[in-house]
Amino acid sequence: MPLHTPIHNDCLEELRTLLGERFSTSLSDRDQHGKDESFHTPYPPEAVAYARTTEEVSDILKICHRYKAPVIPFGTGTSLEGQIAALEGGVSIDLTQMNRVLETHVEDLDCRVQAGVTRKQLNKIISKSGLFFPVDPGADASLGGMVATRASGTNAVRYGTIRENVLGLTVVLSDGRIVQTGGRARKSAAGYDLTHLFCGSEGTLAIITEIQLRLYGIPEAISAAVCSFPTLEAAVNTVIPIIQLGIPVARIELLDEVQMDAINKYSHLDYPVLPTIFFEFHGTEQSVSETARMVGGMAKDNGAENFRWTTKQEERTKLWQARHDAYYAAIALKPGATGWPTDVCVPISRLAECILETKKEIDDANLLAPLVGHVGDGNFHLIFLVDPDNSEELEKAHTVNHRMVMRAIEMGGTCTGEHGIGHGKLKYMKREHGDAITVMAQVKKALDPENLLNPGKIIPS
Amino acid sequence: MPLHTPIHNDCLEELRTLLGERFSTSLSDRDQHGKDESFHTPYPPEAVAYARTTEEVSDILKICHRYKAPVIPFGTGTSLEGQIAALEGGVSIDLTQMNRVLETHVEDLDCRVQAGVTRKQLNKIISKSGLFFPVDPGADASLGGMVATRASGTNAVRYGTIRENVLGLTVVLSDGRIVQTGGRARKSAAGYDLTHLFCGSEGTLAIITEIQLRLYGIPEAISAAVCSFPTLEAAVNTVIPIIQLGIPVARIELLDEVQMDAINKYSHLDYPVLPTIFFEFHGTEQSVSETARMVGGMAKDNGAENFRWTTKQEERTKLWQARHDAYYAAIALKPGATGWPTDVCVPISRLAECILETKKEIDDANLLAPLVGHVGDGNFHLIFLVDPDNSEELEKAHTVNHRMVMRAIEMGGTCTGEHGIGHGKLKYMKREHGDAITVMAQVKKALDPENLLNPGKIIPS
Repeated sequence: MPLHTPIHNDCLEELRTLLGERFSTSLSDRDQHGKDESFHTPYPPEAVAYARTTEEVSDILKICHRYKAPVIPFGTGTSLEGQIAALEGGVSIDLTQMNRVLETHVEDLDCRVQAGVTRKQLNKIISKSGLFFPVDPGADASLGGMVATRASGTNAVRYGTIRENVLGLTVVLSDGRIVQTGGRARKSAAGYDLTHLFCGSEGTLAIITEIQLRLYGIPEAISAAVCSFPTLEAAVNTVIPIIQLGIPVARIELLDEVQMDAINKYSHLDYPVLPTIFFEFHGTEQSVSETARMVGGMAKDNGAENFRWTTKQEERTKLWQARHDAYYAAIALKPGATGWPTDVCVPISRLAECILETKKEIDDANLLAPLVGHVGDGNFHLIFLVDPDNSEELEKAHTVNHRMVMRAIEMGGTCTGEHGIGHGKLKYMKREHGDAITVMAQVKKALDPENLLNPGKIIPS
Repeated sequence: MPLHTPIHNDCLEELRTLLGERFSTSLSDRDQHGKDESFHTPYPPEAVAYARTTEEVSDILKICHRYKAPVIPFGTGTSLEGQIAALEGGVSIDLTQMNRVLETHVEDLDCRVQAGVTRKQLNKIISKSGLFFPVDPGADASLGGMVATRASGTNAVRYGTIRENVLGLTVVLSDGRIVQTGGRARKSAAGYDLTHLFCGSEGTLAIITEIQLRLYGIPEAISAAVCSFPTLEAAVNTVIPIIQLGIPVARIELLDEVQMDAINKYSHLDYPVLPTIFFEFHGTEQSVSETARMVGGMAKDNGAENFRWTTKQEERTKLWQARHDAYYAAIALKPGATGWPTDVCVPISRLAECILETKKEIDDANLLAPLVGHVGDGNFHLIFLVDPDNSEELEKAHTVNHRMVMRAIEMGGTCTGEHGIGHGKLKYMKREHGDAITVMAQVKKALDPENLLNPGKIIPS
């Protein structure tokens, strides 16, 4: 039995009248919308509403507002901290049918999309114009979900996270009001930055329905490189001066020896089972070669071996295949286990220390948890491979994760670099933000006084 | 007589007791703190409080909160839309004595400063470590003021505005609460982005007292270039593909023929009196030469003449001197006139059109208003040179400015790219933001329910 008051029948009826077949209370629909790719307990919503327009989202919210029914936005369900869980029941608004690219401005390098457009879908459409959208969190997430969770990924070191690439939004407030934020200008000093207030608010302040995004010209040339290091410090020590000197790297991905072992096994490769960095450089033919050579020299100075690089598309794909397979390779490392992804982010000077202390605890606890890091940002991920029925193992994973998060915060970092809070990291908000939590709560109360938008997320009760 | 209720005597006494000689009600202090570099009518505060620490700012705010006295933060007084005007009286908090660089992290490329540190002061201190802070709005503004007004300037096309370079803040809320936002991690997905809510809020939501900033390694090499174009379209048409191709320009500054004429006269130079672009490129010796040559070719394709470039420091300084003198040269163009600076920002595809229509109206109205543009961002400035006693001329300048702002908004742009709202552009907030204004007002009301922080700015009453 749910602890919350169930949605009023009249509310369900009004939503059904509004949406017809695009409204569902079937168990399978509900189950599918209560579970993301996290390890956390799923919480199915009481109903699912498939919206097609901003106006429809507004109508749904007006109805829910009248009946005090919670509303949770749903993109592709690829969130990693239980962002879409219906902790207090309510209606999941599925935005996957809002999947149109509304405008593309080639000269201005921007576009406007509906929130359900996925990043791969967008890239497919705009590639014809010689453009691309760089933010790549791995999953083919919806752009609305990416903005809502402040996603980033492998390209952030060069192109920024989604935060640096969102120019404006259309959002629907809890009472159904439709509001435009930002615009198409590259910069503006006109008033409060609502765009960035909503970016990362995980559906707790408003439902994002349209997004104005920055785009980039596809680089003339791309080079890729990979090399292994004798130690993790050597790998991180190579990265620090690269960032400091402003060497234009597009991607710098660190994989630890556990992850490399997983990749060898999964993809039948024979990489050295050592900390390894995958690089990518974007620029002109001349500059990407120059950069690759320069970085190769710096890696060698830190004891790197086998620095391999190429500018050829086919070889690049092959070289990076191992990185792309990382998630599935990790999962496959322990058959029957479930993957529990988690991330933190620290100042880069503390990165090696943070990783090494964490890895020591993983080893001491006899856990298996491959590591992948967006090392240019100081951000790294673990995937704990745990048997959900082994309570002792689960307990250990919880402890290591907890200690890693506390360590990251103590080092001046954050409890999550890119996965967000959801309900999985709620308990760290006070620890990380102190009294700023009360300011967040004031903003939440001002914009959603009835606490109907994705309740139970971001603001600890 | 002021229209507002004067500050209660007991409030003044408490502030005097707290600050001693660092509290002043002298006319000269008040006058100095009510006037910025804008054209707008000065509004002196009733008193000036010189704070030295965050805790002191908190104590001042607690006292003012008890007596319902307005508070206006003051950095260097270089704002351009009357941001520091005490429209409803109250206390100006002067932060110039909060001028310490608190921490510098060379490996992490970040630092923490008190709000009164100016950008030139910071650059002087960190240059010893091979670092620099790129945001350059022209004036040697305080970093607190730059964050509060979301400043940018010549380097934004490469390094972003202040928004992209602020990692965290210490702020004091209207009731005196001290809150930390953000942190030292390069990215975070943990909760609402309060840092960027306060950035650009012009002291209406909180007083910024400390700032965590991103820094950059001083580039190995810098090249500079300058060339003139037969027409303004030719100049803008050169810039568009440079941005599109992601050619790493650090600065692209457009000066119109009126501004070039002013410079020739002011600095005894003989530039062609034509639309002119000043470029700067940052990178390696090889890359800045390659880039300068590439851009030179693109400029030539658009009919540019006299493309001159250099990597030598001395020649660079000489080449750019004209750009650096632009403001004073403009002012000197019409002796006895006062300068009224204004700015807008549009998508770059509309920039030529927006500038040309505006220039036509300047000419038709027989006004003098040199133009400078951060053309890579679609942002441009005018300085109307007006005789304050000539009401007809003033009226014309108002009309041209008004029509330029409306044009920019209609083109998908903004009423200000970097000068902010203050009270000078208040009337355009509703036009630009529509119902989002009500959301801004809700946020303002939540964080400053008594409307004590810089009242009369940003949110139209």
